[in-house]
Amino acid sequence: MSDVSAPPCTTLDDRAIDIGPLPQLVGYALRRAQLAVFQDFYATFAEFDIRPTQFSVLTVLRHNPGRRQSQIADALGIKRANFVALFDGLRTRGLAERRPAPDDRRAHALYLTEAGAALLDELAVPLARHEGRFIARLGAADMQRLLTLLHRITGDG
Amino acid sequence: MSDVSAPPCTTLDDRAIDIGPLPQLVGYALRRAQLAVFQDFYATFAEFDIRPTQFSVLTVLRHNPGRRQSQIADALGIKRANFVALFDGLRTRGLAERRPAPDDRRAHALYLTEAGAALLDELAVPLARHEGRFIARLGAADMQRLLTLLHRITGDG
Repeated sequence: MSDVSAPPCTTLDDRAIDIGPLPQLVGYALRRAQLAVFQDFYATFAEFDIRPTQFSVLTVLRHNPGRRQSQIADALGIKRANFVALFDGLRTRGLAERRPAPDDRRAHALYLTEAGAALLDELAVPLARHEGRFIARLGAADMQRLLTLLHRITGDG
Repeated sequence: MSDVSAPPCTTLDDRAIDIGPLPQLVGYALRRAQLAVFQDFYATFAEFDIRPTQFSVLTVLRHNPGRRQSQIADALGIKRANFVALFDGLRTRGLAERRPAPDDRRAHALYLTEAGAALLDELAVPLARHEGRFIARLGAADMQRLLTLLHRITGDG
């Protein structure tokens, strides 16, 4: 149509890419939505240097003081090897700590520190803003529908 | 209640972990569901040595022959640096190829090879089984609702 001097089958074109059936595949749709939400999370929490998994670990430590790291890792679906490095990062920053378990000196019990609890309190406001942006996008009722469907996909529904 | 000899506040216990408010956070719920679906994908496609992102790239190459790698990477939300390594993996296996663009010798156009097209055809059956497991879990109508909500989260809805 426009440039007849270039062979039409081999010219690089700038039309929008057709991603074909991908949006109808549940894994692809989940991954794109998860990345969109995590991008917003990274931007929201960059000033606190907190990433989603760190936030999850701090939250679970607050709700379950004194548990083994294998219990925390398993509950969050984090590989145990990855959990050790992740927890050490929080420990080095003074947000969490490990104490010997009184009933088994070889085991360690994990705790949130006071600084970790204070940080979680501070994060509550930006967290509500982050969640609020997606609730505004969907509406509260559809957000609840989405969460219920996601729990059923995960097998918790 | 059960073991009064151990101090109740410091004993490691084996009760289920309480993950608190996490299931109501959209990022957490999305990540857990995405991991559940990807685990099933890995298991389904292990014999073909194909991971979700590789599958997406092969699919988009089939639908858009002769495009620049930046176009493919951007359409899939893959960082350009990561895309190069990913594409080279497919190229080494003979599933995709790069050809100089006739209108710009410095640019490269990407194509699926015949072997890549044959592999995609072969993957259609296990892909349908993989998707079918989650459609069975939710029902077809709720799966369509989930996909629509996910597209709205991503900003494509």
